[in-house]
Amino acid sequence: MNPLLREIRHNPLLWLLIFVPVLFAAHQLRPEAHTLLFALSVFAIVPLAALLSHATESVAAKTGDAVGGLLNATLGNLTELVIALTALRAGQYMLVKASMAGVIVTNTLFMLGASFLLGGLKFHTQEFNRVNARFQAGLLFLAIIALLIPSALRQADSAPAAAFTLQLSVGLSVLLIVGYALGLLFSLKTHREVFASADSGHGEETPWPMGLALAVLAAVTVLVALTSEIFVESVQQAASDLGMSQAFVGFIIVALVGGAAEMASAFSGARKNRLDLSVGIALGSASQIALFVAPVMVLASYVIGPTPMDLQFWPGAVVMMLFAALTASLVTNSGRSAWFTGVLLLMVYWIFAMTLYLLPPRAQ
Amino acid sequence: MNPLLREIRHNPLLWLLIFVPVLFAAHQLRPEAHTLLFALSVFAIVPLAALLSHATESVAAKTGDAVGGLLNATLGNLTELVIALTALRAGQYMLVKASMAGVIVTNTLFMLGASFLLGGLKFHTQEFNRVNARFQAGLLFLAIIALLIPSALRQADSAPAAAFTLQLSVGLSVLLIVGYALGLLFSLKTHREVFASADSGHGEETPWPMGLALAVLAAVTVLVALTSEIFVESVQQAASDLGMSQAFVGFIIVALVGGAAEMASAFSGARKNRLDLSVGIALGSASQIALFVAPVMVLASYVIGPTPMDLQFWPGAVVMMLFAALTASLVTNSGRSAWFTGVLLLMVYWIFAMTLYLLPPRAQ
Amino acid sequence: MNPLLREIRHNPLLWLLIFVPVLFAAHQLRPEAHTLLFALSVFAIVPLAALLSHATESVAAKTGDAVGGLLNATLGNLTELVIALTALRAGQYMLVKASMAGVIVTNTLFMLGASFLLGGLKFHTQEFNRVNARFQAGLLFLAIIALLIPSALRQADSAPAAAFTLQLSVGLSVLLIVGYALGLLFSLKTHREVFASADSGHGEETPWPMGLALAVLAAVTVLVALTSEIFVESVQQAASDLGMSQAFVGFIIVALVGGAAEMASAFSGARKNRLDLSVGIALGSASQIALFVAPVMVLASYVIGPTPMDLQFWPGAVVMMLFAALTASLVTNSGRSAWFTGVLLLMVYWIFAMTLYLLPPRAQ
Repeated sequence: MNPLLREIRHNPLLWLLIFVPVLFAAHQLRPEAHTLLFALSVFAIVPLAALLSHATESVAAKTGDAVGGLLNATLGNLTELVIALTALRAGQYMLVKASMAGVIVTNTLFMLGASFLLGGLKFHTQEFNRVNARFQAGLLFLAIIALLIPSALRQADSAPAAAFTLQLSVGLSVLLIVGYALGLLFSLKTHREVFASADSGHGEETPWPMGLALAVLAAVTVLVALTSEIFVESVQQAASDLGMSQAFVGFIIVALVGGAAEMASAFSGARKNRLDLSVGIALGSASQIALFVAPVMVLASYVIGPTPMDLQFWPGAVVMMLFAALTASLVTNSGRSAWFTGVLLLMVYWIFAMTLYLLPPRAQ
Repeated sequence: MNPLLREIRHNPLLWLLIFVPVLFAAHQLRPEAHTLLFALSVFAIVPLAALLSHATESVAAKTGDAVGGLLNATLGNLTELVIALTALRAGQYMLVKASMAGVIVTNTLFMLGASFLLGGLKFHTQEFNRVNARFQAGLLFLAIIALLIPSALRQADSAPAAAFTLQLSVGLSVLLIVGYALGLLFSLKTHREVFASADSGHGEETPWPMGLALAVLAAVTVLVALTSEIFVESVQQAASDLGMSQAFVGFIIVALVGGAAEMASAFSGARKNRLDLSVGIALGSASQIALFVAPVMVLASYVIGPTPMDLQFWPGAVVMMLFAALTASLVTNSGRSAWFTGVLLLMVYWIFAMTLYLLPPRAQ
Repeated sequence: MNPLLREIRHNPLLWLLIFVPVLFAAHQLRPEAHTLLFALSVFAIVPLAALLSHATESVAAKTGDAVGGLLNATLGNLTELVIALTALRAGQYMLVKASMAGVIVTNTLFMLGASFLLGGLKFHTQEFNRVNARFQAGLLFLAIIALLIPSALRQADSAPAAAFTLQLSVGLSVLLIVGYALGLLFSLKTHREVFASADSGHGEETPWPMGLALAVLAAVTVLVALTSEIFVESVQQAASDLGMSQAFVGFIIVALVGGAAEMASAFSGARKNRLDLSVGIALGSASQIALFVAPVMVLASYVIGPTPMDLQFWPGAVVMMLFAALTASLVTNSGRSAWFTGVLLLMVYWIFAMTLYLLPPRAQ
């Protein structure tokens, strides 16, 4: 456990781990203090996600930037997956959907935008592998068409329409998972070489040995599950106490909390002029949520949820996901960026966040 | 007639020609057997379309790939044009519109996607003339804006709105035809050189002499007209007997049947690493339907239809056409493809087909 | 004043200045002759805008094409700014919004399209700095997302929704102005070199001395303000007398009148094979209206308007702005153009203009 302790000593983010036992204690002593529990669980999830991330990076250490970025995104989304499964089991489908839409939008706009901005403040212009950016944007676009169709065609709340939406959602979910698997086959196997980054230098963090990495993955996943349970229980009440709409909490807060560790990696990549890593994490994570986590939730709802969940999102969320994907696609098309590229993405994110914050409650 | 017989002997697809007399006989003997007549007319149209296609290719044989592709698309759409005119005369405007939208979506997503996939399974990556792809995508985008405006601005079903829609539809139709003519002037005359493909080798099929080619064009067009009449008569009843929604039949079945011969050419081009031909046929045919066939139908409805037809499509069809064009535009932008490019397009097509198949009847 | 008189002698457009005193006289003598006053004010604004434009060009003379284009657009929009402020003070918010949406659509489609067409008729193909085109298209896209969100999320006309829309409009306005300022910092200071045009030759028009240029700017701005007052007063009545819908007048007529001088510069740049100048004026002016003039109007409405104005546009106008920006973005992406590129843009413009012309009154 030596490398783990060394890591904790050197990384101030991990000092937040103290909030994990504090949270569990508070939950025993004051189970009704929703706002306190909400705040504590936010602070507890961030370092746990960071540990998951480092364990993942250790596994990914021997691959190229783009592939490492994909692996990072795959396991980095473990936090979101566990939170979403917890909310699913509790039947909070609004929260599940809002948080998935929020992660897609946040990664596509905020994580990518802040990476471009942070990198651009240090380097005049930066370049990245646009083949990977196009591939991820293409996957994302596919998924958003799938999420958009049930909303675009929905009718009045009549019984046949609900049955149609459920049937269609299962079909779309299977299709998206197949698309995701084929995408992995393409990027990791048949066309691996076009995704390899020119820059092969790797992060300064010492990778952990494989055994430690896997042990940390397992133990921390359990802790995340326990923490998310308290988070999901308290978030609703805390949101209304803090005067924030539920859409804002699901969309913005959950996405920022769950993605904190990935963001740390993406930003650090950008500051080291390794934008391939940042773009890979940001877009890869967004497309993984859209093509893998969201469909898995639909299928899982038949097993662990109180009722089946469909893929029909709130129309405002669909519009935001669509414009997030379009903006990211336009912006990454040239394979070059400067600080203003980041500002553009962050401003679109700010427009969405402000709208959700101001939205009167019943509109969501 | 020697080359024609030789062609029939060597091309198993043409053996389906036997269904043409069978269909006419069945129609005499059992005019009420809708499902049988529907199936027979499908099998009869496919080889007729293939003959039209070979006759066209014979004419196009002396031009470059891109121009040959355009000619191919122009006369290859003769089948769709004849089917649509037959449905128009019968006043089946829903079928006319659904089949036009369906051809646009099917060519843009299925024909292009399957070409990329089939080519990509044989070649690691393929390149094509992206100037032509951009030009066709631009035309398609223009047409879809024109088709989208009446739907986007439509109001309640009041009399002035209907008059507005009809007036606007005539204006848009004239504009689209002018745009199509200017596009031909651009691609065939003033800027011909940028559309010429680098690869000038041609298909192995022996072109027919001009006289035979023109005779086949004339005779087969008449047969297609007679066959479509039976097809249009029987399709509605057959669809409900087979449990398929009318939107699905118009959108998917008619488009696949009418385009079978073009698809054969596009796929064979892709397998021979001549993607310029495939992209030219697929996008050229889609833009020709949108800019030429659809407006001609609107104008023709004043002459041969029972009442004037407008350009207002079912909103779901407009959404599908818009996303088909956007997807094709994003995907062809780089001028390179691999097998996964085809998978992406096919998956978007599958999403649309599945949605239409599951759609409850009254929603269409 | 010598250079000013010489300019007037040589430029037939400026002979229209005679309409300025004629307009003021007519307004004194026949204040109720709306159609006459409307026509006279149109003819009076055109040469005034041209004078503003030449004064601006004199100031911009020592900078590169792209930066000169931006400066041109900034002060070239003075005419639109003054007209909009006049309409704002009169509480004609429909006219303010229609004219802003109209200027964005007209500059993006008509000014850019006609530049490509006029340039393309003289030169076989033309090239331009696509970095600048992408930058302006990105800004425009950002602004249109901001304008689209309130419309996309609007609810029934209930009181809380109205309060939400007003709050959101102020927030979005501040954000857009900040975005505009950062964009200027980026294009004029930190990344100035990528916007510099390769072609550094300048227009044949002799620049005025700085003193004269500033004096003309000040005096002509006052005249434009007085003229717009009469224009705004008469436009409504004149429109209904001439049988044009108000949407058509605001969208098309005001935009063409206010932009006449800029168009003259853009078209002349295109004919001299300096498309960078044309693209800079057209897209720069559109993005400046969207990111600067529109938000300033919202904030100014709290000071000089009878009631606060929001940023919520008529949905049809939002759709048009969105497709105008998408079309311009697709079309300028390659950095090359030919005459047909211009035809495509003009046809999209024509679709919008025809729709607005035919639109029955109560739909707007």
